Amino acid sequence: MAHILIIGGSDAGISAGLRARQVDPSVETTVVAADAFPNYSICGIPYHISGDVPDWRDLAHRTRDDLERAGLRLLLDTRARHIDPTSRTVAVSGPDGREENLHYDRLVIGTGAVPVRPPIAGLHELGPADGVHLLHTMNDTLSLAETLQQEPESALIVGAGYIGLEMAEALHARGLQVTMVEQIPQVLGTVDPQLATLVADELTRQGVRVLTDTTVTGVTREGGRLKVTGHRTDRAGDKGSFSQVTDLVLVVVGVRPDTALAQTAGVRLGVRGAIAVDRRMRTGVPHVYAAGDCVHTYHRLLDTNTYLPLGSTSHKQGRVAGENAAGGDRQFAGSLGTQAVKVFDLVAARTGLRDADAREHGLDPATHVARVDDHKAYYPGAKPITIAITGDQRTGRLLGAQLIGHRDTAVATRVDIYAGALHHRMTVDALTDLDLSYTPPLGSPWDAVQMAAQLWVSAHAADLP
Amino acid sequence: MAHILIIGGSDAGISAGLRARQVDPSVETTVVAADAFPNYSICGIPYHISGDVPDWRDLAHRTRDDLERAGLRLLLDTRARHIDPTSRTVAVSGPDGREENLHYDRLVIGTGAVPVRPPIAGLHELGPADGVHLLHTMNDTLSLAETLQQEPESALIVGAGYIGLEMAEALHARGLQVTMVEQIPQVLGTVDPQLATLVADELTRQGVRVLTDTTVTGVTREGGRLKVTGHRTDRAGDKGSFSQVTDLVLVVVGVRPDTALAQTAGVRLGVRGAIAVDRRMRTGVPHVYAAGDCVHTYHRLLDTNTYLPLGSTSHKQGRVAGENAAGGDRQFAGSLGTQAVKVFDLVAARTGLRDADAREHGLDPATHVARVDDHKAYYPGAKPITIAITGDQRTGRLLGAQLIGHRDTAVATRVDIYAGALHHRMTVDALTDLDLSYTPPLGSPWDAVQMAAQLWVSAHAADLP
Repeated sequence: MAHILIIGGSDAGISAGLRARQVDPSVETTVVAADAFPNYSICGIPYHISGDVPDWRDLAHRTRDDLERAGLRLLLDTRARHIDPTSRTVAVSGPDGREENLHYDRLVIGTGAVPVRPPIAGLHELGPADGVHLLHTMNDTLSLAETLQQEPESALIVGAGYIGLEMAEALHARGLQVTMVEQIPQVLGTVDPQLATLVADELTRQGVRVLTDTTVTGVTREGGRLKVTGHRTDRAGDKGSFSQVTDLVLVVVGVRPDTALAQTAGVRLGVRGAIAVDRRMRTGVPHVYAAGDCVHTYHRLLDTNTYLPLGSTSHKQGRVAGENAAGGDRQFAGSLGTQAVKVFDLVAARTGLRDADAREHGLDPATHVARVDDHKAYYPGAKPITIAITGDQRTGRLLGAQLIGHRDTAVATRVDIYAGALHHRMTVDALTDLDLSYTPPLGSPWDAVQMAAQLWVSAHAADLP
Repeated sequence: MAHILIIGGSDAGISAGLRARQVDPSVETTVVAADAFPNYSICGIPYHISGDVPDWRDLAHRTRDDLERAGLRLLLDTRARHIDPTSRTVAVSGPDGREENLHYDRLVIGTGAVPVRPPIAGLHELGPADGVHLLHTMNDTLSLAETLQQEPESALIVGAGYIGLEMAEALHARGLQVTMVEQIPQVLGTVDPQLATLVADELTRQGVRVLTDTTVTGVTREGGRLKVTGHRTDRAGDKGSFSQVTDLVLVVVGVRPDTALAQTAGVRLGVRGAIAVDRRMRTGVPHVYAAGDCVHTYHRLLDTNTYLPLGSTSHKQGRVAGENAAGGDRQFAGSLGTQAVKVFDLVAARTGLRDADAREHGLDPATHVARVDDHKAYYPGAKPITIAITGDQRTGRLLGAQLIGHRDTAVATRVDIYAGALHHRMTVDALTDLDLSYTPPLGSPWDAVQMAAQLWVSAHAADLP
């Protein structure tokens, strides 16, 4: 009976284990998890903090019982220390500190990522007890929840990416006065400035203070509170200093792959220091697979590897790794970077490439921004969706789409129509051929996604072959 | 300057005209419309009746001015009487009864459909003045609105298809006690019985009386009201008679293509008596195109023609006809029968084939019904979507999908993800490869559409090649 050993109890690791057991119920699977929270929805953390999910235990995709019933043996609070690919063993230390060597026939590494610590003076010295938090694990979450018990009145969030935005909403929901600080000139750096402005406006409208072009360089304790300092560039381009006193500081500026363990096995590192894997999620070290936020990601449009740590991708890669580890043969189809985020009443979603990404890879992109209604304007409640379509001017191919709309406008599902089109390398023009559903309360004879595509074609494809 | 003459001022005709002008702004386009309501949204009629769209003028996709500004010459209240393809003329009679011959270089026929009149005794004798209505045109709509001015207390709707269901909601919204009568054993005959039951339950829950297996055979006036009679089969299979007194009778049992004019040109008729066209929307009679509810529809999956009168399809076919009439060369990509309907708080959507359709065409279908949440259950407001996936057991190919869920579950957009997959002939299994968006308030790491597909694979694809 083959033994599949999995390091990591989050999306990639658990997906690998479940899929392995599904493909071959005779395999034995062991999951080594560094904490006591296997299969927790990391993406759900903001919704526990906001109070939407009062009990953090509800963030588990599956309970421990569910996992064990599916045939996964769980070693929790257990750290993998070293991989020996020659003897095919992993040295682990359990919750009691006892070391043990576990043998594997196949190994799946799903160690995930660790939060980036930006160069902020004081960040290493201060911690949760001082009200200074990073946020990546369930333990981080419980620490933050504890700080919130002390009823801080204000918070400053460093980083206005997905997690930063979700946490701004969450802390605002908890009654805190929230300031967001972002180094680049816009929030949500994964969409174009024109769309990001809509998100910033929504934050402001809801009472969140948004400071872009602002870099935090230090944090100190000052009379029981926290003083955050840095510098900022104003609209005229003049640099000035920045300083704010707050009760809570949350630093969420992204993640980097956690590859320390994998390197003990001699795996090769790829893009952005992530573990290099092929599309079968093989590391190149015999019998060793890797998946999730610790590996680089095959990009379907660029046909090259990139680093795109996303929960949905981790599930897919883990599933592929598990299937192959159990004797199957499946390839990861690739990521398109499809993402969505809810920010108060708005949803922002994107898939594929933007102008700069595309140009960097030798394409000839053009982007057209349209404002189209989610459903027929005559039916009550119609709301505009702002859609940016990026297409290649040489071939007419769809390269990407960005959408922003009210949460009732199905933006996070409409982006999936574009993702499907990108998956199949459609032209922008061919979107018109898709037989999409129509009923006036929910759509239009040409769906919003098609109207935006048609407007791109009118604007940019006149001279296409 | 070429003259494109278009007969019909609804979706297909107007789409043809607009597209022709877009492709070649030098063409002259004339639209001959039998009524005074060009480019009205026929699909929006129920929402005027319900009161959601108080002014019926708002149902216009575009105003008369919009159309004229786009370069369409409009001849309203004008009937096309006869086509002479030899002299390339159409005899028309205008609002004043004057006859005229219009010359064309290219002709687009978009005469649409007429409502089917089922064999109900009394239906020919009674009319709007008696409270007996068919519903297809804006004139029908205005008649019905007039009857509603008299504040009838109850209505009986014959036919529980898309329009019947929307009208049940509309008349209920106007305060009428509504009874729906359907000849077949279920409402919404375009989805499987298991899903249709959910729709019937919603109707009942809202206070609409639903009678299936019931055939109306007669309607008579009785003391200022209407007596509807017929027969019904009960659950035990026993036949009995049916009788109900009501104030308003609405007969909406489907449509048939309106081909009377086209036949004067000698066009060939195809499936279900609709005008036979090729994928360029050519009728075979030189210079004569046709599109919309009057033509048969190329089915993308079956690679054959069928009859699927839908607004979205009319727009697409009209656009293709207009493009080709203006000298372009575009093919209609084909219909998948994608449809959605809102029934009170539920939305039902479908695309592709169901078991019976597929089997009839030599496929080996199997359908699996799953109940999956629209978003992560831990986030407030998660609601189940019932999804029936039909796949081919020999090839694993996706054949169709049916979805029913609360109106907040993006069912009408989720169906479009399946429509995209069908467009590209994906296998059910390959849906797992789509990079769809994920954020806990709106989705899951595997979107509902993927979970349903995975469950189909587990149930039916074990032995696939």
